[in-house]
Amino acid sequence: MHAENRPVGVVGLGSMGSALAAALLDRGHPVTVWNRTADKAGPLLDRGARQAATVREAIEAGPLTIACVLDHRALRTVLDPVADALAGRSLVNLTSGSPEQAHEADAWARSLGAHYLDGAVMTTPPGVGNPEMMVLYSGARTVFEDHRPTLAALGDPLHLGDDPGLASLYDAALLGLMWSTMTGWLHGTALVGAEGTPATAYTPVAIRWLTAVTGFLTRYAAQVDAGRYPGDDATVDVQIAAVEHLLHAAGSRGVDNALPELLKATMERARDAGHGADSFAGVIEVLRKPAGDR
Amino acid sequence: MHAENRPVGVVGLGSMGSALAAALLDRGHPVTVWNRTADKAGPLLDRGARQAATVREAIEAGPLTIACVLDHRALRTVLDPVADALAGRSLVNLTSGSPEQAHEADAWARSLGAHYLDGAVMTTPPGVGNPEMMVLYSGARTVFEDHRPTLAALGDPLHLGDDPGLASLYDAALLGLMWSTMTGWLHGTALVGAEGTPATAYTPVAIRWLTAVTGFLTRYAAQVDAGRYPGDDATVDVQIAAVEHLLHAAGSRGVDNALPELLKATMERARDAGHGADSFAGVIEVLRKPAGDR
Ligand SMILES: NC(=O)c1ccc[n+]([C@@H]2O[C@H](COP(=O)([O-])OP(=O)(O)OC[C@H]3O[C@@H](n4cnc5c(N)ncnc54)[C@H](OP(=O)(O)O)[C@@H]3O)[C@@H](O)[C@H]2O)c1
Ligand SMILES: NC(=O)c1ccc[n+]([C@@H]2O[C@H](COP(=O)([O-])OP(=O)(O)OC[C@H]3O[C@@H](n4cnc5c(N)ncnc54)[C@H](OP(=O)(O)O)[C@@H]3O)[C@@H](O)[C@H]2O)c1
Repeated sequence: MHAENRPVGVVGLGSMGSALAAALLDRGHPVTVWNRTADKAGPLLDRGARQAATVREAIEAGPLTIACVLDHRALRTVLDPVADALAGRSLVNLTSGSPEQAHEADAWARSLGAHYLDGAVMTTPPGVGNPEMMVLYSGARTVFEDHRPTLAALGDPLHLGDDPGLASLYDAALLGLMWSTMTGWLHGTALVGAEGTPATAYTPVAIRWLTAVTGFLTRYAAQVDAGRYPGDDATVDVQIAAVEHLLHAAGSRGVDNALPELLKATMERARDAGHGADSFAGVIEVLRKPAGDR
Repeated sequence: MHAENRPVGVVGLGSMGSALAAALLDRGHPVTVWNRTADKAGPLLDRGARQAATVREAIEAGPLTIACVLDHRALRTVLDPVADALAGRSLVNLTSGSPEQAHEADAWARSLGAHYLDGAVMTTPPGVGNPEMMVLYSGARTVFEDHRPTLAALGDPLHLGDDPGLASLYDAALLGLMWSTMTGWLHGTALVGAEGTPATAYTPVAIRWLTAVTGFLTRYAAQVDAGRYPGDDATVDVQIAAVEHLLHAAGSRGVDNALPELLKATMERARDAGHGADSFAGVIEVLRKPAGDR
């Protein structure tokens, strides 16, 4: 048996679990699947998967089980009755959860003599298997290294550290970035749309602009780590002046301004805390404490 | 004289105006500069610029004047006394303003027999002259085409349309996207930072994730134009569930949650308006009307 085609058990065949199993089949792994609602396995069986009659059978099909169900509660509901089967085996959990839940699951797995790795799939199901998409892992590096060739079938595997909570922590942070970016994009799309510009015309410009913005992020990341935010490119004060143009343009066109109002208020808090002449990176100083603590 | 090295007048030598003049000099244009505070011209004179004693002299130095001062009020303060010199010449205004101000400036320039183009520099001064950076223009396409070789010295020139307000409109929309993205990034940076991850470790992952997010934007842009938002990749309902993990993880680590709380409230408004099973693009439906109108 090559490392590349180790047998894998996949537990949970929702839209994400099904995509994970399909990507493993595409790479030639023998895949044994289980789902609470058994008939969701149908399309995978057509592609060569084997259906387990019980969760235990899926776990015992090989050294590695990949689980992806709704949440940690569902995970335990499914695995607790057959926990003994995990002893000496690896469990990679791609169910979303909090860092605290990842720690709990890691402790639970250890108590069973199982190897646990927590993970977060940073794409939607159609992106699974694309090597450009990241799948984040955290927990024992040895477990990660052992199964890396298998995990590579799902996307580009990145190990964040031995703390099992890191994948969930990054997942939360990155999803927050996604919602912020998507909502800011929709706001601008509504604004230019009010003057007749289609979203498909605006969006390529927005995407190009985001590339420029990632350049700012790289520069500002070093400032955050240094704790000093020289405003030699553009200051918080200048941005506060510019946000007025956005509020006026959007407000007068009937676009909801709750997001830019909040961004402005956040910048003003940074200014009031003494960061007006700093770069935008200085805003982190007021995010680190809750608004009530000012 | 080649089209490539037409003489240019540059009015306003703040950090942006100075960068514009320097980029023109770098490309071999004869550049005549003017600034209210004359001694800011010093570094440019060293690089070969000619200093105008009056604004009129800068305008009369060639067929094109590029102006970049604080705001539209300052622009008129500077140009009104010498407005007659603009007749038959082109004025490219890279001063930030609202679409309405761009329309006013266009009408004013027309009344003088001048050719007006409004613009927005989509980078900070160090990025000026980099052909990957966008400079947006709007107004008469003939004027844009006439001066395109000169404008190319400043960055990649994009003409958005004949409506002179479009560059300002896009500028506002894109800055809103930038602030949203940067604030979302800082929030996540504060979150992972609370567990000891440096910003310089988190940010490359965040930037890679933004590349995946731009893929979502492209897909969702077509949905916005179609007015239908099939949630077959990830629904608003699923995102509302996931945002709880972020709120909990950040809140318990002392990170200010005003931004994710607003994003959650916005998604909930979309859900309440019947878009729970739609993709995130459906959120635009609640941004198009002010929150008070629900
Ligand atoms: N979809 C995405 O874009 C995406 C992206 C990244 C991460 N994720 C995460 O991946 C996980 C699964 O998401 P999904 O999109 O696949 O969701 P989904 O399509 O709703 O599937 C949910 C899965 O969980 C199972 N399940 C739910 N409650 C259960 C219980 N009490 N006992 C046993 N099984 C139970 C379901 O089984 P039945 O079929 O029997 O109902 C199904 O297999 C979630 O944690 C999600 O946050 C999803
Ligand atoms: N910096 C950026 O990253 C950036 C990016 C995109 C767009 N912009 C826009 O570019 C424009 C200039 O920005 P900047 O960064 O160069 O600002 P800046 O460094 O503060 O320079 C302001 C300029 O405006 C002049 N000015 C101000 N009030 C005036 C008045 N009443 N009469 C005559 N001149 C006056 C100043 O002349 P003095 O030298 O005599 O004070 C100076 O030349 C703004 O509209 C800004 O929004 C800037």
